[in-house]
Amino acid sequence: MPSSPMTETHCELCQTEGGQVLVRARLWRIIDAGDPVFAGFTRVVWNAHVKEMTDLDSDSQARLIAIVLRVERVMRETLEPHKINLASLGNQVAHLHWHVIPRWEDDLAFPAPIWNAPAPGPDKATLAGLRSATVNSRLSDYHQALINEFQNET
Amino acid sequence: MPSSPMTETHCELCQTEGGQVLVRARLWRIIDAGDPVFAGFTRVVWNAHVKEMTDLDSDSQARLIAIVLRVERVMRETLEPHKINLASLGNQVAHLHWHVIPRWEDDLAFPAPIWNAPAPGPDKATLAGLRSATVNSRLSDYHQALINEFQNET
Repeated sequence: MPSSPMTETHCELCQTEGGQVLVRARLWRIIDAGDPVFAGFTRVVWNAHVKEMTDLDSDSQARLIAIVLRVERVMRETLEPHKINLASLGNQVAHLHWHVIPRWEDDLAFPAPIWNAPAPGPDKATLAGLRSATVNSRLSDYHQALINEFQNET
Repeated sequence: MPSSPMTETHCELCQTEGGQVLVRARLWRIIDAGDPVFAGFTRVVWNAHVKEMTDLDSDSQARLIAIVLRVERVMRETLEPHKINLASLGNQVAHLHWHVIPRWEDDLAFPAPIWNAPAPGPDKATLAGLRSATVNSRLSDYHQALINEFQNET
């Protein structure tokens, strides 16, 4: 494992939480991304400043993925999305974090990735607005379910 | 684990390989995505028709992620990208597969995700063309390294 500093001065995920912290453990944290369009968008951030999954040792890799997949499970159970999107990109903030994104067939971008949502026509915008309202109404249940899921993690 | 058929009639990844197969094992395969812009774009496909990571049992989840991360390691060693992007989206083809994408600061989309590459200006297009040529010149070494890495997998 290449050495890397625990924190970096110019890294957004070292200097800020990156969103509303739902669960904090010693090695990682779960945050609500606060995305105004894609409600429920959740991130799992590795606390130390590491760039890639393969910069972690295999135990840490397995630990982080296990957390991501427990978030996926809780998300499926409480938000009931049509699809889950998982991604670790880090092109803009090269500090290891996973996106866990609930997707619905009537959301603003589906079936495109959220990052290239086409400009919606009025019908699509209306449907997506209704979907967002539904998701938002379940968001506190989802967040509470995450807190319960990870309450014994340190 | 919810029951799911091994193959589906209307699924592109059940009915076709999805790209040039580099490594084939009983449970998964590694394919070159053949992306004309993002050379080196690789996919790890779970052979059975399963939608989400959390539809796999934990052993299968760990096995699949381990393969994805071995691809990431070989990609870093041979193509030396500036960043790796990992993603399991499946909005268009809801059959579990992982994208492993090498990214360079002078590629056509960086730092955006590859799915929303802005229309490039002439300078950016020239740089991206040079980058693609460099990556293409290493592609056969990368593919051979993958074949070597997984030669004992069944």
